Amino acid sequence: MKKKIKKVNAAILIIGNEILSGRTQDKNVAFISNWLNLKCGISVNEVRIVPDIEKIIVDNVLILSKKFNYVFTTGGIGPTHDDITAKSISKAFKMKYEYHKEAYSILENYYGKKKFNDGRKKMAKMPKSAKLIYNPSSAAPGFITKNVLSLPGVPSILNSMIENCKRYLVKGSKTYSRTLNLYTVESNISKQLGLIQKKYKKNVEIGSYPFFRLGRIGVAVVMRSRSPSKLKSVNKNLLQLVKIKKIKVLKV
Amino acid sequence: MKKKIKKVNAAILIIGNEILSGRTQDKNVAFISNWLNLKCGISVNEVRIVPDIEKIIVDNVLILSKKFNYVFTTGGIGPTHDDITAKSISKAFKMKYEYHKEAYSILENYYGKKKFNDGRKKMAKMPKSAKLIYNPSSAAPGFITKNVLSLPGVPSILNSMIENCKRYLVKGSKTYSRTLNLYTVESNISKQLGLIQKKYKKNVEIGSYPFFRLGRIGVAVVMRSRSPSKLKSVNKNLLQLVKIKKIKVLKV
Repeated sequence: MKKKIKKVNAAILIIGNEILSGRTQDKNVAFISNWLNLKCGISVNEVRIVPDIEKIIVDNVLILSKKFNYVFTTGGIGPTHDDITAKSISKAFKMKYEYHKEAYSILENYYGKKKFNDGRKKMAKMPKSAKLIYNPSSAAPGFITKNVLSLPGVPSILNSMIENCKRYLVKGSKTYSRTLNLYTVESNISKQLGLIQKKYKKNVEIGSYPFFRLGRIGVAVVMRSRSPSKLKSVNKNLLQLVKIKKIKVLKV
Repeated sequence: MKKKIKKVNAAILIIGNEILSGRTQDKNVAFISNWLNLKCGISVNEVRIVPDIEKIIVDNVLILSKKFNYVFTTGGIGPTHDDITAKSISKAFKMKYEYHKEAYSILENYYGKKKFNDGRKKMAKMPKSAKLIYNPSSAAPGFITKNVLSLPGVPSILNSMIENCKRYLVKGSKTYSRTLNLYTVESNISKQLGLIQKKYKKNVEIGSYPFFRLGRIGVAVVMRSRSPSKLKSVNKNLLQLVKIKKIKVLKV
């Protein structure tokens, strides 16, 4: 029985001057993308990194939320003046920017009434109608507005929250991948690789990435597909090529 | 004497399924952004990561090259079928995609006539009128087409080429930065930080980033500005705040 393939996609919008300036190395793209594919069968098709400027965030939220099934924003949901994600999303969708009752009481509980100051209260302000993404590590919740899921920028906190996004996501067909690490150079196989890719262009995506390991040069050929059987066929084609060309395969 | 501030900006377009899928952790954004600011006074204002699909590359090259002074592309200039950056840029600017004479002879020399196969020859094909960005580590040059500079995706090779971009870039005023690492929580200073930011909103950008170090929580307050004197004033304001609030400053 043939299973029907369901394509669900997403974009990631990284909000933060510190990533753009090079001060901070982003780690959230790889984490979110791997998690989305593995756990939800959702593929990330575009990423944008933008500064903490309201108009730019508004424009990008609108563009990406129309273009993709989901948008994940990271960063800008803390207590300081440069945390303007919630306000910007409210503006984008013409929603009121106001206290979320449950978020307010979660934070009030967490900090205690006395220490619940204005900065901390700000973290309970969200677009009206937003739903919460719970935060098991530092209380301040993320939120989903329409198809836009907003998470914090600190990787350890984001990672602890990601499972709580699942309930809001429609699942798609997972993309499977296989990798062959070959002790050869790209130009030695580029022609045949191109022909195999052409044959399977509808179902399998073949990537070729040089690597340097223990002083030797090699090529990682990565096959990705939503169809396990097509993936298997491509792998077979590649192993034939490897045999003909007498290329050594690196066992990992 | 007051020096006139000159703003020059750039975007980075990361081309590669392997970054989008999360297989590979991008390291080029932070490197390029730091180098551009430090060596050329150019600030990166937007980054996009897109897949190896011609139409998408064409669209993004056109949008970004209109919007910013420079665009840096990374990835997709190797010998395999998934390396389509040069072809896509040719299409974007309606230029012929053809052998670049000097690139051809550089590569022919490097590999030797016998080993100069079709895959390797492909790396000499560029948009007509492109100028070369020399590659001291693996010969295959990058290139500049109008205001778009195309570099490889492998970080070690990209890093070795970056100095060769300089001759094509108009310099701007450098952005200076200062960081105060404070042993406090964001919400303790968020109000005052917001007021200082408001006062200097035209000239200084203040960012606030939580950190965890040796089991203690802190906040890195980062000030960035093209004006060293304004930066100094903000720093002074912050040190006053720190004194009033009796916050410990971490010496790094």
